[in-house]
Amino acid sequence: MEHMRRVAPQVPIILDAKRGDIGSTAEQYAKEAFERYSADAVTLSPFMGFGSVQPYLQYEGKGAFLLCRTSDQGGDDLQNQRLASVEGQPLLYEHVARLAQGPWNLNGQLGLVVGATYPAEIERVRQVAPTAPLLIPGVGAQGGDAAATVKAGWRGAADGSSTGPIIVNSSLATLYASGGGDFAEAARRAAQSTRDTLEAAKQG
Amino acid sequence: MEHMRRVAPQVPIILDAKRGDIGSTAEQYAKEAFERYSADAVTLSPFMGFGSVQPYLQYEGKGAFLLCRTSDQGGDDLQNQRLASVEGQPLLYEHVARLAQGPWNLNGQLGLVVGATYPAEIERVRQVAPTAPLLIPGVGAQGGDAAATVKAGWRGAADGSSTGPIIVNSSLATLYASGGGDFAEAARRAAQSTRDTLEAAKQG
Repeated sequence: MEHMRRVAPQVPIILDAKRGDIGSTAEQYAKEAFERYSADAVTLSPFMGFGSVQPYLQYEGKGAFLLCRTSDQGGDDLQNQRLASVEGQPLLYEHVARLAQGPWNLNGQLGLVVGATYPAEIERVRQVAPTAPLLIPGVGAQGGDAAATVKAGWRGAADGSSTGPIIVNSSLATLYASGGGDFAEAARRAAQSTRDTLEAAKQG
Repeated sequence: MEHMRRVAPQVPIILDAKRGDIGSTAEQYAKEAFERYSADAVTLSPFMGFGSVQPYLQYEGKGAFLLCRTSDQGGDDLQNQRLASVEGQPLLYEHVARLAQGPWNLNGQLGLVVGATYPAEIERVRQVAPTAPLLIPGVGAQGGDAAATVKAGWRGAADGSSTGPIIVNSSLATLYASGGGDFAEAARRAAQSTRDTLEAAKQG
């Protein structure tokens, strides 16, 4: 973390810890994420409810992304279940999106994790949570389409400002761009190429 | 872990990690839990579906407890939502219990985490998952009633054998039995007292 802060001080660091625990433990995990590691944000599972999220919101200037609609195999097992007793009978992931946009979002610190592999579901999350930052993994190695991702999730103006920001994360395609001695250069090229694709999609 | 294995080799060790991540990451977390730490079992969040659970089932002789109905504030936010499209319209935690008893339980390695604070819900989980081991935290500091917990969750015979085992976990009441120089003895007394209460409840 110290190395990254030194060489790339302007780059936000999101700890993909996917924590989800009772309040007293969450307090300690929040301390770990934001004090020990000095991360800017953390990913959280919403399964244990608001009490497991609230301790992270005590840290001013820090953010938390709730798992919403994840892209891996089995992600729909629970997340795509329809809720019988919530108004409008939303799917579970739509309900999580609504909680992160509204009731749980005490100080504007909450975002959502939505996989790139299902652009239609990114679009649905964007409808329910119009201004929440979306953290979108799965572009590249997991097969998500970068242009479709931007179109579905990003809400912004031509001048580059955004009312519905997205952070697109392409880890595997960057980390494993090469297994040879050129891995640093290959990773840089992969990252730049992904960035160019995303920028082009914003213009389109 | 080495110390615990040396002084208490017969005591099972459950790593309360509450992991829940995509398959490729879950593989590494499973390796951490079962190879690096040599834990006997681990707690997992079911929110990301079966793909996030399956890697742990590759380890023969190891177990995984899925978060089902947790006892902390907010535990009911998602877990008590009724599912519209599943037969019988179960609550989400009842659906998780059914998955752990049946479809997800490839080799008999799955159990469930159910808080002690709601005995009626332990009983409901036991109906849906009659033979799954239940890991029950919340007795003691969190206010769960030991006798009610045993009555609701344990299914066994007078000779001590069990077809529906429970593991009752009382961490805070033991760890914080005393802040003075007598903490080791005080913790021992608290643990033994909890054990005696549980044993008596089995006879009742």
